[in-house]
Amino acid sequence: MNAIQRLVSPRSVAVIGASADPAKTSGRPVSYLRKHGFAGAIYPVNPKVESIDGLRCYPDVASLPEVPDVGIVLLGAERAHQAVRALAARGAGAAIVLASGYTETGADGARRQAELLEAAGGMRLLGPNTIGLVNLTDGIPLSASGALEMDRFPAGSIGVVSQSGGILGALLSRAAARGIGLSKLVSTSNEADLDLADFVDYLADDEATRVIALYVESVRDPEAFCRAARKAARAGKPVVAFKIGRSESGARAAVSHTGALAGADRMYDALFRQVGVIRAQTFSDLLDVPAALATGRTLRGQRIAILTSTGGAGTLVSDSLGVAGFETPAPDAVTAARLRALQQGDHAALDRNPIDVTLAGLQPELLRAAIRILLDSPGYDAVVVVVGSSGVGMPDLMANAIRDCLPASDKPVIAYVSPHAPEAAALLNRRGVPAFAAPEACAVALEAMLGAARGASAACPVTVDAAEAGTAPLPLPDLASFGSGSLDEAAAKALFAGFGVPVAREVVVGDAEAARAAAQGLGDSVVLKILSAQITHKSDVGGVAVNVAPAAIAARMARMAAEVEAATGAAPARYLVQEMVRGGVEVILGMHRDALGTAILLGMGGVAAELFGDTVLRMLPEGRGLARADAMEMIGALKTAPLLHGFRGRPPADVAALADAIVAFSRMVASLGGRLLEAEINPVFVLPQGQGVVAADGVAVLAGAHAGEAAVSPAN
Amino acid sequence: MNAIQRLVSPRSVAVIGASADPAKTSGRPVSYLRKHGFAGAIYPVNPKVESIDGLRCYPDVASLPEVPDVGIVLLGAERAHQAVRALAARGAGAAIVLASGYTETGADGARRQAELLEAAGGMRLLGPNTIGLVNLTDGIPLSASGALEMDRFPAGSIGVVSQSGGILGALLSRAAARGIGLSKLVSTSNEADLDLADFVDYLADDEATRVIALYVESVRDPEAFCRAARKAARAGKPVVAFKIGRSESGARAAVSHTGALAGADRMYDALFRQVGVIRAQTFSDLLDVPAALATGRTLRGQRIAILTSTGGAGTLVSDSLGVAGFETPAPDAVTAARLRALQQGDHAALDRNPIDVTLAGLQPELLRAAIRILLDSPGYDAVVVVVGSSGVGMPDLMANAIRDCLPASDKPVIAYVSPHAPEAAALLNRRGVPAFAAPEACAVALEAMLGAARGASAACPVTVDAAEAGTAPLPLPDLASFGSGSLDEAAAKALFAGFGVPVAREVVVGDAEAARAAAQGLGDSVVLKILSAQITHKSDVGGVAVNVAPAAIAARMARMAAEVEAATGAAPARYLVQEMVRGGVEVILGMHRDALGTAILLGMGGVAAELFGDTVLRMLPEGRGLARADAMEMIGALKTAPLLHGFRGRPPADVAALADAIVAFSRMVASLGGRLLEAEINPVFVLPQGQGVVAADGVAVLAGAHAGEAAVSPAN
Repeated sequence: MNAIQRLVSPRSVAVIGASADPAKTSGRPVSYLRKHGFAGAIYPVNPKVESIDGLRCYPDVASLPEVPDVGIVLLGAERAHQAVRALAARGAGAAIVLASGYTETGADGARRQAELLEAAGGMRLLGPNTIGLVNLTDGIPLSASGALEMDRFPAGSIGVVSQSGGILGALLSRAAARGIGLSKLVSTSNEADLDLADFVDYLADDEATRVIALYVESVRDPEAFCRAARKAARAGKPVVAFKIGRSESGARAAVSHTGALAGADRMYDALFRQVGVIRAQTFSDLLDVPAALATGRTLRGQRIAILTSTGGAGTLVSDSLGVAGFETPAPDAVTAARLRALQQGDHAALDRNPIDVTLAGLQPELLRAAIRILLDSPGYDAVVVVVGSSGVGMPDLMANAIRDCLPASDKPVIAYVSPHAPEAAALLNRRGVPAFAAPEACAVALEAMLGAARGASAACPVTVDAAEAGTAPLPLPDLASFGSGSLDEAAAKALFAGFGVPVAREVVVGDAEAARAAAQGLGDSVVLKILSAQITHKSDVGGVAVNVAPAAIAARMARMAAEVEAATGAAPARYLVQEMVRGGVEVILGMHRDALGTAILLGMGGVAAELFGDTVLRMLPEGRGLARADAMEMIGALKTAPLLHGFRGRPPADVAALADAIVAFSRMVASLGGRLLEAEINPVFVLPQGQGVVAADGVAVLAGAHAGEAAVSPAN
Repeated sequence: MNAIQRLVSPRSVAVIGASADPAKTSGRPVSYLRKHGFAGAIYPVNPKVESIDGLRCYPDVASLPEVPDVGIVLLGAERAHQAVRALAARGAGAAIVLASGYTETGADGARRQAELLEAAGGMRLLGPNTIGLVNLTDGIPLSASGALEMDRFPAGSIGVVSQSGGILGALLSRAAARGIGLSKLVSTSNEADLDLADFVDYLADDEATRVIALYVESVRDPEAFCRAARKAARAGKPVVAFKIGRSESGARAAVSHTGALAGADRMYDALFRQVGVIRAQTFSDLLDVPAALATGRTLRGQRIAILTSTGGAGTLVSDSLGVAGFETPAPDAVTAARLRALQQGDHAALDRNPIDVTLAGLQPELLRAAIRILLDSPGYDAVVVVVGSSGVGMPDLMANAIRDCLPASDKPVIAYVSPHAPEAAALLNRRGVPAFAAPEACAVALEAMLGAARGASAACPVTVDAAEAGTAPLPLPDLASFGSGSLDEAAAKALFAGFGVPVAREVVVGDAEAARAAAQGLGDSVVLKILSAQITHKSDVGGVAVNVAPAAIAARMARMAAEVEAATGAAPARYLVQEMVRGGVEVILGMHRDALGTAILLGMGGVAAELFGDTVLRMLPEGRGLARADAMEMIGALKTAPLLHGFRGRPPADVAALADAIVAFSRMVASLGGRLLEAEINPVFVLPQGQGVVAADGVAVLAGAHAGEAAVSPAN
């Protein structure tokens, strides 16, 4: 047994600071361990008390008769570290520290937390500021949560890890009320040592766990999290996450748009998606979706039969499924005939969907037969049974009838139960039939079952083994010539070109004569722009002119100088004369980095797509660029991707060249690491098939050499 | 008392076909009337029974001792019309017919329903196929719904009308379980006579009703519905509607895109919006939103204080509010100081938001004081009180403390209650504090309170008195020259121009010589298109060329002829030479008509906006065009409206001219009525300010003169 196994399934538990008063928070852990029948040894530690509820009480950890697997530390922050040190000295597997007053309170608390971690030494630590954990599989509560007042655990196959202590009790109460079975329930809170990733890793191995549910505030170790999530995926265990902090505004980059387009929450979206984590959109989905996935049934198509004994509720479910994109076709002729044979002479509407079995709803034999017929039908991929008013009064009948049909098919069967009858829903859940109180929840559950069937890998090729798929970093070019800070447009594009991104032909000029000469070499008409590392929104100050004929460039330059001077107070010193790029689709290519990692952003250009924020974000595999397949997948994930494929008679764009440019850009980002603070190409013109892409404008911000090197190798 | 008042608040009720067995559906109405203490006279009618539960039973309607206000008809479809005829003959106010087997079953049923309506004569009829109605204000159940087995009505101020009978019981049970009070609950079902609009009209007058909630399948009489909804708005009673059939695909027009873009459900969206009806997005919102609005409190801003005694749940609420666009700022200095003074020496986090009153949550005095401080604070517009685990055990304490604070302020106060504690939520609702079990529901409720405050009229100037605001139809031009059927592009634009829509200058030509001559009169370069009433997607067959110099037009025409012939099998006979329109923003302007009415559609053009379907739909006031203010509001409601206002340094577009064109187009649609089957301008170029708009392409389909006239005056 490793330390986490000892923590979750201890044979002995010491409770340091246990109170003899079970009404006090410090009295609860011993009381709950006994109430829920913990079979191992319980050692209360409290120098002021002789015994607690008949258990001998010890004055300190040193005097315990054996080494405890776990110590629950109920002391305040000022003394908790002493108990932790004593537990570590005895060789305990882990300590659970409930006290608050650590990093969550500021600098003093952070110091206390460091002290606590130091005291733990090689021993593992859960918390501090945690409400503990509950091993429902084995009936072991190691927690002070008031929710443990319940008499019986809702044991099952969903392993839950919550970064919030306050939510643990809510999840436990809700699961019990809903009849949804959990295997393990852990609150990691401050994560001084053990974190989200550790428990995902543990649950991926845990035999009792089939689905993993996460309440996430912040992923502190993205690499470890990705490894653990991939391990769960390999073990066939779906991971469902509800992430709070969704409305946090992302860190806004100073120069590029990408920062604002990326945002902290979109980075999580990208991370979750790439490691196959299903994101729960509402808090209630965090139990609903795992409950559906825990059946292990996969949905192979979108055609859903709705069996009801009350018309109204069936219509509600049908409507919600329709909004979510499911189909609810009428039974095919054979199925309809078999249904009619069930209820001869009855008025029940059996040849439409919802299939209304007014009478069968009250007769188990008929209900069973109807469900079996629908499961048999090649026209349906799943069955939703509506338990309306008539079923509410006899939940056992409904639940048993549905359960009896499950072995006959591997298609999903779920139930919608009127929300005013929570007991009926709980009974169905306990019988292995996922039951939902909102029609929308039925749709969400079926969507998750469909997604699980299609497989995370199909949905996103970057997923499970992105690290293997990514391309290696490139040797760094000589960056000395670029200096540091915000590069001007020409330097930025030279940097991009150095890593293999095709850029527009252009010449830097200082006066009209040089401009005319440059223009003559670049075609019938050119683009004239001011060149400045400071002014990034050139067109806002009149610093961009397109379609300028070489003969007219001197006059245009004079006008531009006047306009820019009027707008900024200074006449431009240098200009860029650039070839005109025509006939392409504009996209934007950028990078964004935050605590979660580094991402590449691809967005459709053009003002309309920009207003809709049509962008796709993909995290870079650690230290590597994206693989070509990743780049192709990103392109396909744009909502406006059809614009690249020859929409409305336009020529198809060179998507292959765009993919190459994305890979090159991403390898540049990976290679430069922390040296590159910001980078964005806007626009990249994607020319017609076979003609490649051209980066027409861009920005880059480089850190000084020292900062860059430090950031490239954070581990050193 | 009018007939509907007699129906809803009868002094005497006859129950035709009453059974003595209260377990049977036909035994329920009498049983429920007695159970819930109906004070008026109950007359069971059943020739086979002497008495029912001590009430004298009558052999037929003719022998009743007085004229009943209402007759509940429990007979089957084959005999119900006889009872209805007898009730009408006696002068009853209304009959409620529960039997099914009418229009919902097909042609035979429709015939039976017509017979039933004929039998009712001047008497009003609810149903058939209804489950009846419940007057909760006065404790009068006129229904066979099993939900009436409940002991006590959840009486209150929300009037509910459901077009589904099956949903009535579900709404009643749910309202009772949630502690949400209803005034009247009516199932209209087949609506042979009395319909949704009749009861909205009734509830707008009903003193006990403050908010009206509708479960809508299909608005059968849009004009009457609009009148009733406007009356409710004038009475200050919000109307909230949940509409099913949301995924129904709209009727697809053959020629224009508008039909597909419009869709049946978007027509409802437009209708509801224009008469100020709030659309509930989920079924549970149908009670949640009215419960929030029934408080009569308005939300004046977006800054919400969250008071909690459990960190986790407070964060959940904060996160959901953030996603919905609300702000949860920390308390200002004064408020923070007042909060700190409440709990000296305690660790509770009072200077952030959620405001965590760990101890106060258990002490009514402190809880009350904290709520009052937050309501006092100029930094907050509303307070959400989180009733977590600690509050669940003492719902009375929480509910009373919150209720005691209500008189101190007119700001909204709502509660989030852990979903595993429905009793606590019900208690809060009964005490007048809207309580929700999902964090997302708190956000939806606050959004509705915000919308109510801003007023439907501010949100949409078309709203309440669209009929007055709309412009009168124009005299019809001579349509004979246009013929009927699908017009070619030139004819369609001539039609639009006849109603005042500016169109591109163009000449219809048959050969290269005429084309060259036309082109020379239209500028340096022109557009050349094939002209055909059959081929509407001209560019798909190579039938469009832009930027053609007059000198090159003959060659281009030859190539076009070859390409079109290759694609369609026929060489084009006629062409259109059109001025080149440059530098404008493209929009699409169309119309759509279905059973609900006629709508004008405005959409942003350009491929990207098209992919996102950025369109706005507004229903025409009956027989009239849109007012200019309506047109301006439509333009502003486009998500890509910034493209028209000088986005990214482009010149602002001539929005005023676009509004004029929308008005002209809408007056054309109103004037032509049923003569116009389809019409769409795609694109309209909106040129820079002061330069107007130009319709560059369009389609129109005219009905034959006879069909048109019939449709224009449906009432005649």
